[in-house]
Amino acid sequence: MNTTVRVARNGVDVPTLFATLDAVKANPELAQFQFRAHNRWVSGTHSRSSIQGFYGAMQEDTTRTTPFVYDADHPQVLTGQGNAPTPVEFLLHAIAACLTAGLGNIASARGVTLHEVESTVEGDIDLNGILGTAPAERNGYTGIRVSFRISGDADEQTLRELIEQSTRRSAVFDVLSNGTSVDVAVDVA
Amino acid sequence: MNTTVRVARNGVDVPTLFATLDAVKANPELAQFQFRAHNRWVSGTHSRSSIQGFYGAMQEDTTRTTPFVYDADHPQVLTGQGNAPTPVEFLLHAIAACLTAGLGNIASARGVTLHEVESTVEGDIDLNGILGTAPAERNGYTGIRVSFRISGDADEQTLRELIEQSTRRSAVFDVLSNGTSVDVAVDVA
Repeated sequence: MNTTVRVARNGVDVPTLFATLDAVKANPELAQFQFRAHNRWVSGTHSRSSIQGFYGAMQEDTTRTTPFVYDADHPQVLTGQGNAPTPVEFLLHAIAACLTAGLGNIASARGVTLHEVESTVEGDIDLNGILGTAPAERNGYTGIRVSFRISGDADEQTLRELIEQSTRRSAVFDVLSNGTSVDVAVDVA
Repeated sequence: MNTTVRVARNGVDVPTLFATLDAVKANPELAQFQFRAHNRWVSGTHSRSSIQGFYGAMQEDTTRTTPFVYDADHPQVLTGQGNAPTPVEFLLHAIAACLTAGLGNIASARGVTLHEVESTVEGDIDLNGILGTAPAERNGYTGIRVSFRISGDADEQTLRELIEQSTRRSAVFDVLSNGTSVDVAVDVA
């Protein structure tokens, strides 16, 4: 008999979380999502993305009434103006945020109250690849390391298992680890 | 005889761009970079990253005097509060910004003046993977599509080749297409 009391915890509405899982089990089509970004070149290596609409749960989202806007640029040492982080740094934000979001849900589902969660992400890259000065070098990160520091009302093993499960179920971890199909199309105006 | 006049174009200081390439050719160690992000859990699926320091050109950067700060969250339909885009949406910003930054540099190096560059990125994802409702489904995007619309003072083929070269030399395209090693470590406080 399952006697787990399902309550809101860590800012997660656990009953809604389980209701969502039940709804998706009953209708897997609810889990088909499409996310989008729109980017516009500003100048040099500087560009700006808007993120707003997405499709999911069988409808276009209507809850985001204004776009989230993010710039990216190269630092001056890489011929940019340093107006914003580099594109590759947003990958580090994405992996930390994805693992942490999953952790929040998983801890709550398992009845663990989190106190503090911090992570540091490092990505090593040899720019001889993208600069063309050593074309055999790969263009992207040769490796990414995520270091978590976590505290909560559970023993060390239980807390470690939360991160392990979050990693097993992380969308960004999957894409960064395994890659995916990326198609680039061009329309000349 | 190379009679190309190397001038600033598209907001790119082309002489500096070529000087950078020459410097790296002479000392490949200059191209070793490490980028970083620091993330802190806020509540539920909401977290916040700071991006500031990086190592490159054989030294720690000193030009960024304040951190860039970005939140991420799940939308309400995915048990979040919608405070910010989802982690996976930052991957779409990253790929658009990386291809566009490369385009800015490559166009400038080739003497092409860009007028407008826009791109739309779509990423399809079946959340039955991360929800565990269909564990055989992958967690991440099943595919990402980038659609560019570009105008500039060159013929269609030349403009298309700029995007092709930017794709060949894109760090984010490489990571998203091919994956990389991602190590996750945990320190329990």
